[in-house]
Amino acid sequence: MTVLVVGSVALDSVETPFGKADDVLGGSATFFSAAASLLTPVQLVGVVGTDYPMAKLEPLAARNVDLAGLERAEGTSFRWRGRYRHDLNAAETLETHLGVFSRFSPKIPEQFRDAPFVFLANIDPRLQLDVLNQVKRPKLVACDTMNFWIQSRRPDLIDLLQRVDLVTLNDGEARQLSEKVNLVQAAKWIMELGPKHVIIKKGEHGAFMFSRDSVFFATAYPLENVFDPTGAGDSFAGGFIGYLARSGDLSDASMRRAVVYGSALGSFAVEKFSTERLMTVTRTEVDDRVRQLRQLTAFEEELPS
Amino acid sequence: MTVLVVGSVALDSVETPFGKADDVLGGSATFFSAAASLLTPVQLVGVVGTDYPMAKLEPLAARNVDLAGLERAEGTSFRWRGRYRHDLNAAETLETHLGVFSRFSPKIPEQFRDAPFVFLANIDPRLQLDVLNQVKRPKLVACDTMNFWIQSRRPDLIDLLQRVDLVTLNDGEARQLSEKVNLVQAAKWIMELGPKHVIIKKGEHGAFMFSRDSVFFATAYPLENVFDPTGAGDSFAGGFIGYLARSGDLSDASMRRAVVYGSALGSFAVEKFSTERLMTVTRTEVDDRVRQLRQLTAFEEELPS
Repeated sequence: MTVLVVGSVALDSVETPFGKADDVLGGSATFFSAAASLLTPVQLVGVVGTDYPMAKLEPLAARNVDLAGLERAEGTSFRWRGRYRHDLNAAETLETHLGVFSRFSPKIPEQFRDAPFVFLANIDPRLQLDVLNQVKRPKLVACDTMNFWIQSRRPDLIDLLQRVDLVTLNDGEARQLSEKVNLVQAAKWIMELGPKHVIIKKGEHGAFMFSRDSVFFATAYPLENVFDPTGAGDSFAGGFIGYLARSGDLSDASMRRAVVYGSALGSFAVEKFSTERLMTVTRTEVDDRVRQLRQLTAFEEELPS
Repeated sequence: MTVLVVGSVALDSVETPFGKADDVLGGSATFFSAAASLLTPVQLVGVVGTDYPMAKLEPLAARNVDLAGLERAEGTSFRWRGRYRHDLNAAETLETHLGVFSRFSPKIPEQFRDAPFVFLANIDPRLQLDVLNQVKRPKLVACDTMNFWIQSRRPDLIDLLQRVDLVTLNDGEARQLSEKVNLVQAAKWIMELGPKHVIIKKGEHGAFMFSRDSVFFATAYPLENVFDPTGAGDSFAGGFIGYLARSGDLSDASMRRAVVYGSALGSFAVEKFSTERLMTVTRTEVDDRVRQLRQLTAFEEELPS
């Protein structure tokens, strides 16, 4: 089954302790698509400026990402320039030029409107709501958000949360939104707004999926070398929703596997700059990493003596 | 099988957002013993002052903790006063009075010297080495340490690490000791000094056990209410070594289960002040929590279609 993603398509310039990359593929919809398209067809809706090097998107198009919803608008593309210090946990934003993204108004092409899986990447909640008004009864709608919208668009975000099945946030955002320090309490608070599932991403510390009747935790793969953390969260979402769309199965067992696929894709994303690693990784490598993640936490309870 | 623990026995005064407790049982050997004794007999070596309220230790003595190695020395007991703010992750030390602990020189009673399992809790590495010179060929020796010794006693600590099977440290200490930011690299560096296993404790983010040929990760139990984090690490160690001593089995499967028992005991420790919860928790409750921890990360790989 197909996944529709609406989000940013950007050009990133990133500096890490291991090197730097200029004007490489970035943006939430881009990372999401690069990860999800390994598992299932993707329909992307976003906007770039007339300066965007469209050739860079060809590998995505060649891998099941339908770019019919990528608008080219008069003006400059969204550019982000950032730096990571040695701890690699927090990006330091050096420059942000929103360009045409500041006037983004998602128009979902007719042929995308019956996508069974929808991921509303991190954009203004008003636009996320606008997308929901354009699509027909999807099987699952998930959204992401960030500190900026939690602060500046809280009422819209709360409206949105009443209309989605699942929300992904990082631990800081979950705390900010719920005003609860404890993540279990934060997740419960958010589920009461509407979502049946809350995924709390903790970066290198793994991810929780809270559901009405169960809690699942997927560890992050302990990489010896993290190269560039940019896009890990969106790649996680791509692996997660991509897996669900491919299986079409929303049982608890399938959702749990999906979180682990998210963790696996997130771990590949950070092995190189931009979407580089996501575009070379094979389905076999992904399945292997899922098995390694299983092995990492596997233990047998004691047999009764 | 019996575990010998050498460490501090203290009186703690703790303030958390949820209340305060004065002059309650504290110290690394105390928390370790309270946790381990649920699973196996414990022999404790430590020192208290003449002011120590010995009656407070009776519940431990009643539960398989042999206090024959607890010296009562002329002077005042080790006292620690600390506070936790809302995030509960970092203790703020308000006062430390080492008292008789500053002159602690562990004397292992003759009848403790052939203990098959030895835990050298966080004390001066010179004293930890001194304990090793007093015991006979144990099956497993594990040690803990802290930032203070890593900085002030590095050569002794390195000598010690050459003589232990396993070391437990928190993530910050592992980074400080190895001078590596990445925990996989840090663990490898430490294993090269000698220990066959390195356990890196990440508090609420779980714990890694690195071994020569495998890596295991145990998640922390997602508690809705963390009451007082004091002693979580030593209770983890008590659950871990206690499980190993009870099973007498040092296979990888048993070591993995032991880490989960550590995680379970650590999670009970933080539910109340001091050793309160550890002294009321039942073996059945511990086993149940181990099962819940298993359920928390359990997922089935996909069946071949």
